[in-house]
Amino acid sequence: MDADAKKTALRMIPYGLYVLTAKGGDGRMTAATVNWVTQCSFAPALVAVGVKADSQTHALIDESKEFVLNVIAKGDNGVAFTFFKPAVVEGNTIGGEPFAPGAVVKAPVLDKAPAHVECRVVEAVKRGDHTLFVGEVVEARVKTPPAGRADDAICWLKDLGDKVYYGG
Amino acid sequence: MDADAKKTALRMIPYGLYVLTAKGGDGRMTAATVNWVTQCSFAPALVAVGVKADSQTHALIDESKEFVLNVIAKGDNGVAFTFFKPAVVEGNTIGGEPFAPGAVVKAPVLDKAPAHVECRVVEAVKRGDHTLFVGEVVEARVKTPPAGRADDAICWLKDLGDKVYYGG
Repeated sequence: MDADAKKTALRMIPYGLYVLTAKGGDGRMTAATVNWVTQCSFAPALVAVGVKADSQTHALIDESKEFVLNVIAKGDNGVAFTFFKPAVVEGNTIGGEPFAPGAVVKAPVLDKAPAHVECRVVEAVKRGDHTLFVGEVVEARVKTPPAGRADDAICWLKDLGDKVYYGG
Repeated sequence: MDADAKKTALRMIPYGLYVLTAKGGDGRMTAATVNWVTQCSFAPALVAVGVKADSQTHALIDESKEFVLNVIAKGDNGVAFTFFKPAVVEGNTIGGEPFAPGAVVKAPVLDKAPAHVECRVVEAVKRGDHTLFVGEVVEARVKTPPAGRADDAICWLKDLGDKVYYGG
């Protein structure tokens, strides 16, 4: 297999951007920008999220079996960059962003997120350098209804810069 | 959970469009337009694809443990619509589109696809109305190198029309 062809073909997959959050039994909370996300069932509503196996967020999702997927609003590139690095919790902020716990799960919901889904993990595929967590959607909220198409209201990976990719 | 909020939040996930193909042991071949796709590991390179559990393509992937994910080129909306319906094989065409077998797996590679990846199934998550097939990329080819960003070279779900969604 040609490595460049593999990289180019896989980078053709377009992605949105999300802040994935989790909370451990000891109260620790984490938040990380992710893009490997897809729905994978209507009934029950399931979403799959690829999470770096050696990350703090992975450890807390693996332990708590819960996560929140916060949508990043179109134009809010700063939020995406903030959660590329480990986030510090101070009071009711994480990485400087105000949050509140989810309605059904305990992971943080960012005030800034135009929408979020709360999930309980039903399956974890541990096959490579990332785990694919499959979560059942147990709660969903929309704070800012999209004016046009729903997928135009979200920050896309390509919005971060001509050479920014996570994939390949 | 509010059903409208769930629908809107999940429809915020942007998607590309692909023709997913498979070939059974008896020689039957199928092709279906799909959009629930994400990479889920770099090493090994893994991709996850959500496939309707009661579809022919599902049956053949489940049997052969192989598939090809053909990228649909930007502007080639017709190909996407063609494979929304069951595809008929005639000679070396499927749904009227010329194809050849993959280099490593037997499923069809569409001549028109600017790029494709050939995958062997390593896991199948059967939890809802779709199965999430996780495939290891065993071959990848790029026929038409993208002029700009790789994800701009592909047809997006939103390109099919203001009200076309598959998700929610």
